[in-house]
Amino acid sequence: MTQRSLTDLPAWTDLKEHAAPFNRPEKHLKHLLREEDRFPGFSRRGGGLFFDFSRQRIDRAALDRLLDLAESRGVLRRFREMMAGAAVNVTEGRAALHTACRDFSGAPVTAAGEDVMPEIRRVRDETRTFARAVREGRVTGSTGKPFRDLVVIGIGGSYLGPLFVSEALGAYATGGLRLHYLANVDIHNFGKIVSLIDPERTLWIVISKSYTTPETLANSRLAYDFMAEKGLDPAKHVATVTAKGSPGDDSANPVLRAFHMFDFIGGRYSVSSAVGGVPLSLYLGDDIFERFLKGAQEMDIHARDADARDNLPLLAALISIWNNNFLGYTAEAVIPYADPLSELPAHIQQLYMESNGKRVTEDGRSLDHPTGVILFGEPGTNAQHSFFQLAHQGRPFPIDFIGVVRPQYEAYAAVSKGVTNHQELWANLISQPMALAEGKDDEKPEKTFPGNRPSSTLMLPDLSPESVGRLLAFYEARTVFEAFIWSIDPFDQFGVELGKVLAGDIRKEMAARNADPSHSFDHLDEIRQFYLKALFRGETDE
Amino acid sequence: MTQRSLTDLPAWTDLKEHAAPFNRPEKHLKHLLREEDRFPGFSRRGGGLFFDFSRQRIDRAALDRLLDLAESRGVLRRFREMMAGAAVNVTEGRAALHTACRDFSGAPVTAAGEDVMPEIRRVRDETRTFARAVREGRVTGSTGKPFRDLVVIGIGGSYLGPLFVSEALGAYATGGLRLHYLANVDIHNFGKIVSLIDPERTLWIVISKSYTTPETLANSRLAYDFMAEKGLDPAKHVATVTAKGSPGDDSANPVLRAFHMFDFIGGRYSVSSAVGGVPLSLYLGDDIFERFLKGAQEMDIHARDADARDNLPLLAALISIWNNNFLGYTAEAVIPYADPLSELPAHIQQLYMESNGKRVTEDGRSLDHPTGVILFGEPGTNAQHSFFQLAHQGRPFPIDFIGVVRPQYEAYAAVSKGVTNHQELWANLISQPMALAEGKDDEKPEKTFPGNRPSSTLMLPDLSPESVGRLLAFYEARTVFEAFIWSIDPFDQFGVELGKVLAGDIRKEMAARNADPSHSFDHLDEIRQFYLKALFRGETDE
Repeated sequence: MTQRSLTDLPAWTDLKEHAAPFNRPEKHLKHLLREEDRFPGFSRRGGGLFFDFSRQRIDRAALDRLLDLAESRGVLRRFREMMAGAAVNVTEGRAALHTACRDFSGAPVTAAGEDVMPEIRRVRDETRTFARAVREGRVTGSTGKPFRDLVVIGIGGSYLGPLFVSEALGAYATGGLRLHYLANVDIHNFGKIVSLIDPERTLWIVISKSYTTPETLANSRLAYDFMAEKGLDPAKHVATVTAKGSPGDDSANPVLRAFHMFDFIGGRYSVSSAVGGVPLSLYLGDDIFERFLKGAQEMDIHARDADARDNLPLLAALISIWNNNFLGYTAEAVIPYADPLSELPAHIQQLYMESNGKRVTEDGRSLDHPTGVILFGEPGTNAQHSFFQLAHQGRPFPIDFIGVVRPQYEAYAAVSKGVTNHQELWANLISQPMALAEGKDDEKPEKTFPGNRPSSTLMLPDLSPESVGRLLAFYEARTVFEAFIWSIDPFDQFGVELGKVLAGDIRKEMAARNADPSHSFDHLDEIRQFYLKALFRGETDE
Repeated sequence: MTQRSLTDLPAWTDLKEHAAPFNRPEKHLKHLLREEDRFPGFSRRGGGLFFDFSRQRIDRAALDRLLDLAESRGVLRRFREMMAGAAVNVTEGRAALHTACRDFSGAPVTAAGEDVMPEIRRVRDETRTFARAVREGRVTGSTGKPFRDLVVIGIGGSYLGPLFVSEALGAYATGGLRLHYLANVDIHNFGKIVSLIDPERTLWIVISKSYTTPETLANSRLAYDFMAEKGLDPAKHVATVTAKGSPGDDSANPVLRAFHMFDFIGGRYSVSSAVGGVPLSLYLGDDIFERFLKGAQEMDIHARDADARDNLPLLAALISIWNNNFLGYTAEAVIPYADPLSELPAHIQQLYMESNGKRVTEDGRSLDHPTGVILFGEPGTNAQHSFFQLAHQGRPFPIDFIGVVRPQYEAYAAVSKGVTNHQELWANLISQPMALAEGKDDEKPEKTFPGNRPSSTLMLPDLSPESVGRLLAFYEARTVFEAFIWSIDPFDQFGVELGKVLAGDIRKEMAARNADPSHSFDHLDEIRQFYLKALFRGETDE
């Protein structure tokens, strides 16, 4: 679907004109904040969350023009098509149906002429049955002992999504199972994990769609050797999550159970599929995982059905585009004031930067404007004691603050300086956006705060499975809405291919040298030679 | 010391002129890389590390001009003055002597007319004695059991530095002690930690220079209540690291031991002081901590004494300034291809962004150029499977790759695709900088890689305590050198004050409401009222 170039659209040029005076003193946030009905006009409730963008450098006219832009790009229609199974992953000719994984409506969802829901339900049912059998000790390892340690072998989307959710909902992990992640190929990881687990009571969950990811294969090779050394049968200790017919779903290589993932689910959108479903149902229970899915579904439906003006993820996407393409910010931080959300920034970093770090439209035209920003973050208040100096007095960047009204633990309620720990957290959550927005004059230059630094605040009622699902789906929808405005494909990742190809060439050189110590690297360029020689010599010095 | 404005210096205007043609095709990295003697000309050994900047978008003339800039700003002289005890923290009128903490030369270091070394040695000796006594079970908790769990209560610089080093050197933690960090004020943290520790065998280490940090006080209040509930005597279970005479160093509030920190050591530079010394000597052993200090000292001496042209941290600082002020990059990533260095990016993020996120010179003049960039990172190869799509095809940012020649664990040497795990890691470490620099044409637009994306590679021989010390000191010196070129104060952090003041106001409102449920928030602005009401109601909805 070739669209008119984005930057030629009247809505875009209007926005450019409208943004120009925003560097003037009268457009400083401290003045915008004093406009009538600022807070009700620039905050919304929906999909179970509350979104406050009153501290963004935006006014009503800018918001109206951004909504015109969304309208002219047909993004809500496109989102509906996505959820209905259209091939919105244009470069790869596929649907993107992470939303179908949390669809409990009973209605069919048709992709490439076929209803995907029966397969999704089958995998969900298999996952539930398996998780219960493991948790109840009915499925055991090869020595008959019930499982206690779960080791997920997977990287990227097979790691960051499950990690985020298992950390966020760790308080619900009452089944006595311990969850470990083996992502990086660094041998250190494997060494550390085997020092923590009981081999006879360990279930390895190998997650890879293609089952060809070198890091995951290398780590599962280590796991198989380790089992062999301990006299354990992999067929009783390994489950896989992989595409139908991949090497991980091959009866010649028997495993306890192989769960299927589908070509219409990309890695960074896969936590709602068996990629998250298998480890999280084992660790948290299938009931908790289902509650998580239902929360995500609530936000999906909001994102699909709410009017643009009241649509939380769409508004967040428009503000992000305003900050990026019109006000010129190049980075954004996500700061959850909740330690269980400490892995959210890393997950959203992948989700957003891999989806929206693109340079061409989905139909192959070069873009004449920047796309995704650099996204990073740490939990608050930690971040305040780390990089917030720069946020207040250095190079400005927009921030998403995230607050949780009710804490997960309420058992310890000591009071310090007259407030509980949770209140202390909130005193900071409330104050930081204000300090950033309003700033403060001082006669000493080093104590002057210029202010005018934008932020949003996203508020969750609690850290229930539903809330965590809503939060995930909010960021997924926001990411996709931005891509739809730019007409880029948020579901491909061709940018990671070149590094893989070059690493494959180096791997061949290493393998050749491993097989034959006289294999020379002299045919390679000077830099590659240098590092290969250092590695094989085991020394940095020549 | 008022200096001529940076941007008026001939060296600066020369650099501006020289940078202009760098957006031309003939200055693409793929061409620069083919220039004669590129690799030997743009790589250096020093202070025990190897630094390769051949894949930076820099040529010989740019390098010469950057060295002129360093010369005209007298940064090496300034660094020597810093190490010798001058009051280089100008806004606060203090020395910055983190380097003295790892000085084993026996020579005096004089700050404000006094030799600081006797006090530093006294604290080092006290730390050594205490660590040995605890590790050997000669100092025990109040029920006579030897300690097993160490809980560090501290935030910001009292947390990220020790965390980085304890993760990096975890393989050396052979004393049977387990180390936990209680940083964030989120009650979740406390709840999680007390579920892991044995109260009778727990030593709490409270780290706060002023002993007034609200988060640290709130968490130590919880710890004291917890000890009281378990019938344990805090005087036998708490050690403090704090300024002489602070509330944490008060005989009215007896503790097992109070270790002093000094006003010439800032939080983010404090891991070499008792802030790192106490927890790390307990966890790793005082011998390992001393080896770490000696590695840092080696790099300090290199940074102080090496010629500018061969000075690793100074060259890294100049390249960072080139990328920032002349090529216009606004962010930078640190990607260690070593999982034990997974906490390095978070530590360097604080170190760099808090030091160099400034808007005025040390003598109070507003700057007319940007200062510190946004710094972020994750370990490789994980990062490749997360945000490297954007690095290759989206908005470019410079990267520091870090490689370690010899892995910490060599016990598991399975081979997958013909290579070991450590070799697989290196195949990627070698390939990514090349793929980023050279790019690749393709007839399909989505498979085209523009290349010309700059990076450095820093190589360590191993993850010994010495190497980790060198790495820390490299980034500290690099950070300080950049600040000296800009004439900003890298040792103050006035930018965090406003948020603290506003949080104090909110805290008072909360405390008033805790004391009197009829206390009204109506005198506050609408936004503050809204969030306070939501928190006290426990609901997001009104």
